[in-house]
Amino acid sequence: MTNSAAPIKITSKDTALEFLDSYDTFLFDCDGVLWLGNHLLPHTKEFLDLLAAKGKRTIFVTNNSTKSRLQYTKKFASFGITVKEEQIFTSGYASSIYVRDFLKLQPGQDKVWVFGEGGIEQELAKMGYESLGGTDPRLATEFDASTSPFLVDGLDPSVKAVIAGLDHEINYHKLAVTLQYLQQEDKVHFVGTNVDSTFPQKGHTFPGAGSMVESIAFAAGRRPAYCGKPNMNMLNTIVSAFDLDRSKCCMVGDRLNTDMRFGVEGKLGATLLVLSGIETEERAVEVSPDHVNPKYFAEKLGDIWQLAEGN
Amino acid sequence: MTNSAAPIKITSKDTALEFLDSYDTFLFDCDGVLWLGNHLLPHTKEFLDLLAAKGKRTIFVTNNSTKSRLQYTKKFASFGITVKEEQIFTSGYASSIYVRDFLKLQPGQDKVWVFGEGGIEQELAKMGYESLGGTDPRLATEFDASTSPFLVDGLDPSVKAVIAGLDHEINYHKLAVTLQYLQQEDKVHFVGTNVDSTFPQKGHTFPGAGSMVESIAFAAGRRPAYCGKPNMNMLNTIVSAFDLDRSKCCMVGDRLNTDMRFGVEGKLGATLLVLSGIETEERAVEVSPDHVNPKYFAEKLGDIWQLAEGN
Repeated sequence: MTNSAAPIKITSKDTALEFLDSYDTFLFDCDGVLWLGNHLLPHTKEFLDLLAAKGKRTIFVTNNSTKSRLQYTKKFASFGITVKEEQIFTSGYASSIYVRDFLKLQPGQDKVWVFGEGGIEQELAKMGYESLGGTDPRLATEFDASTSPFLVDGLDPSVKAVIAGLDHEINYHKLAVTLQYLQQEDKVHFVGTNVDSTFPQKGHTFPGAGSMVESIAFAAGRRPAYCGKPNMNMLNTIVSAFDLDRSKCCMVGDRLNTDMRFGVEGKLGATLLVLSGIETEERAVEVSPDHVNPKYFAEKLGDIWQLAEGN
Repeated sequence: MTNSAAPIKITSKDTALEFLDSYDTFLFDCDGVLWLGNHLLPHTKEFLDLLAAKGKRTIFVTNNSTKSRLQYTKKFASFGITVKEEQIFTSGYASSIYVRDFLKLQPGQDKVWVFGEGGIEQELAKMGYESLGGTDPRLATEFDASTSPFLVDGLDPSVKAVIAGLDHEINYHKLAVTLQYLQQEDKVHFVGTNVDSTFPQKGHTFPGAGSMVESIAFAAGRRPAYCGKPNMNMLNTIVSAFDLDRSKCCMVGDRLNTDMRFGVEGKLGATLLVLSGIETEERAVEVSPDHVNPKYFAEKLGDIWQLAEGN
């Protein structure tokens, strides 16, 4: 992780246009960049329209595994922005691709045990995988080893991988059965959607996917293969899906240690940090062994649109 | 951690009597040693009666924080064994002592946020501490940051410590509020009852306290002070409570990496491993950098009673 030059703050029309014209493909983190929760940030739509008018490719990359890509297209639509499912990469989708392309599980034959929400299950189903666990309502009942429908008849021998991610309905029943599958160490692979320990919401910071995956990993005494940002599994999948030239790509995000690191380690042409999420200008320019620095930064995406379109 | 001599298997009357007569105080792990779940192991009562007849002190040390010491006396009573509350040390009690004697929290003034079950709350209450969280039924409701009764009016400024342990009713609401207290890093101490990643039950291995505490630690980005075995906090508390001569104490347990390590690191006179829990004879005598070895071992406690009383 090296950063050769000081980060450039985009504050003039010239810098804005030079930035936009230097890259073909823009990869966006979503929350904190395009919107905050259910509130679209100012001029996000205009910014994306400008990229479209310039013939740029846009890809949306989120570590949120609770929603499927289809659900994300609906979220974009609710803001009046049209995005195709193919443009969206969630960590649940990346995990499913990992199971298919790297672990080579056979659809219609091998199954996946899910600790997490519908966003993972739906991507697996779309690829033809049967999943167990996840949002199955029988997991919402109090756990008893001698009556759990997931244990009484033994574990399902077709399960070849566990995918674990954020689950707002975490409970002991889910943790206990997930552990039983992971104890079959020679047979069942262990995939984590993303390592984020927390995520910001409404002025608080709440437990993230990583805090749950690490709990499961500690109990099982084994490490997961993480798929979300900043892991390169996710980026390699995206690059190969669109046959991208990395030098012509720019990663746009609001976190130094996931988004910016993702772009820097992935050797993309550039990174752009926006300060509409959790980072500050001080951190953006601070040279520290603890984090990478972006190539560019701006207060928010809308500022770049205003600069580029202004006179 | 060094073990000078090969472990001695107690298989003769002479060895059994020599073992019993060499020590004044016997510290016992409970599950896997005295009983398995709700099933008392054979001749446990006779063995304890023999110790009493010989004027030995017996102390019961468990990492289970879900029950209080009072509840433990009732469990002993259900097997026809009379044990006083003062003879019992749970990891929940050890954590409460740590809060009182080491962190110096003031009863009636400072409060403790509990992630865990009633065994912690009851020990705190007995010492005069008000606890929040724990088994409060309002935590069983779906978490919403804007309506949670634990967040809407802000955090309780009297909370000076979090004690976290095993909670079979783990849910997101509890995890989320616990994290908010731990984010007050300068003000709120972080105590973990015990580090055990799993525990055995009915032929399975299920997630233990450590897997929950580590999840919370990962989200908070800070380390807890662990109080249960093999942490010396617990042993120091016991030694000072009874003014024990360590050289005259023997730790009896069924796990090398908690019970035996507890006795060896605590420089007790001896350790006795029983094979009625999770360890094997092979592991008991195996010399390995991964675990300590006991001074003595036996298949089960009842065998020592039979040998000592036999002719």
